[in-house]
Amino acid sequence: MPGLFISLEGIDGSGKSTQGKRLAETLRAQGRAVTLTREPGGSPGAEEIRRLVLEGATDRWSAETEILLFTAARRDHLEKTIRPALARGEVVITDRFADSTRIFQGITRGELSDTVDRLHALMIGLEPDLTLLFDLDPKIGLSRANARAGKELRFEDMGLAFQQRARAGFLALAGQHPRFRIIDADADPDTVAARVWAAVTPELPPA
Amino acid sequence: MPGLFISLEGIDGSGKSTQGKRLAETLRAQGRAVTLTREPGGSPGAEEIRRLVLEGATDRWSAETEILLFTAARRDHLEKTIRPALARGEVVITDRFADSTRIFQGITRGELSDTVDRLHALMIGLEPDLTLLFDLDPKIGLSRANARAGKELRFEDMGLAFQQRARAGFLALAGQHPRFRIIDADADPDTVAARVWAAVTPELPPA
Repeated sequence: MPGLFISLEGIDGSGKSTQGKRLAETLRAQGRAVTLTREPGGSPGAEEIRRLVLEGATDRWSAETEILLFTAARRDHLEKTIRPALARGEVVITDRFADSTRIFQGITRGELSDTVDRLHALMIGLEPDLTLLFDLDPKIGLSRANARAGKELRFEDMGLAFQQRARAGFLALAGQHPRFRIIDADADPDTVAARVWAAVTPELPPA
Repeated sequence: MPGLFISLEGIDGSGKSTQGKRLAETLRAQGRAVTLTREPGGSPGAEEIRRLVLEGATDRWSAETEILLFTAARRDHLEKTIRPALARGEVVITDRFADSTRIFQGITRGELSDTVDRLHALMIGLEPDLTLLFDLDPKIGLSRANARAGKELRFEDMGLAFQQRARAGFLALAGQHPRFRIIDADADPDTVAARVWAAVTPELPPA
């Protein structure tokens, strides 16, 4: 039985995580096996790397070192969580995957986009079957993200201009890859969930 | 004033660390500025990554994830410690560098040597001006290494056959790169130090 690999992408506060949980619940209610996971992290080793990357000062790591750490975490996540679940025929939903690295690092230093792509080709290889891009005005996203608690604030700390460039980057990437579906995330959770479901159902393998 | 970048390589227990300290002392006694460092580690961030890689079970990380973590640590080490010291005209001595990754990972899975080289070309670039290979019968090296305390035993734990393949790998690599000098490390520390000094002096920039 073939699995399905779905990634959720978008700026901070776009509702990805909430909608990921709802999508997992809906699929499980259908009797499907689902693995809901996230990046950076998603496996015990990758979660340890995540702590190293996300805690501490914004300039703690150079962009290059950060890309390597994210790729190491992604490799572990792929080996320990994603590939085994797909091999069992599950639907895998990951809150962020390689596109987040492409966008966030590419904004910091544009010439790094090529480095991210080459590292991905060398060490990861796999792309999602389906990528849901939660698109939202960064002003709304940032106010939602700031309302959350927690010490993992490195990317949120980068401010509105950064999130605006991220949004533009994600939309540009969506135009390049047929696996993307753009979800208008500026609505109440039920409406967004219905948009997600409409995007996902045509791609599901026979239950 | 140009610096000089020296790496010390060899199997565990070959005397690298002891000889690195002695070489640094001798150079400092000449009035030279020296940075003595080590891998994995050598900068605060890289030391944190080092802990992640070296502690825990032998099979905690796949070879690919381990290569990525070592490369992340190396990138941080390069940016924060090695390049600034070379820019100040110092002699930089590092206890292990990229050759260790080439050898130890290449042994675990031979086809990974090419991956290590491609990652190095993409993310590191720099090679030492001079690499001292401390060559020793692994039986002697292993008994020396086992006499040491400490919880960072992952590579020593891999046993004699592993260290024998590492020795052969290092010697083969030395044959491919003119930057290598093979130091016979099966002698008392004073004799080995004299051999090191004979190898280093011709390469030193004017003091």
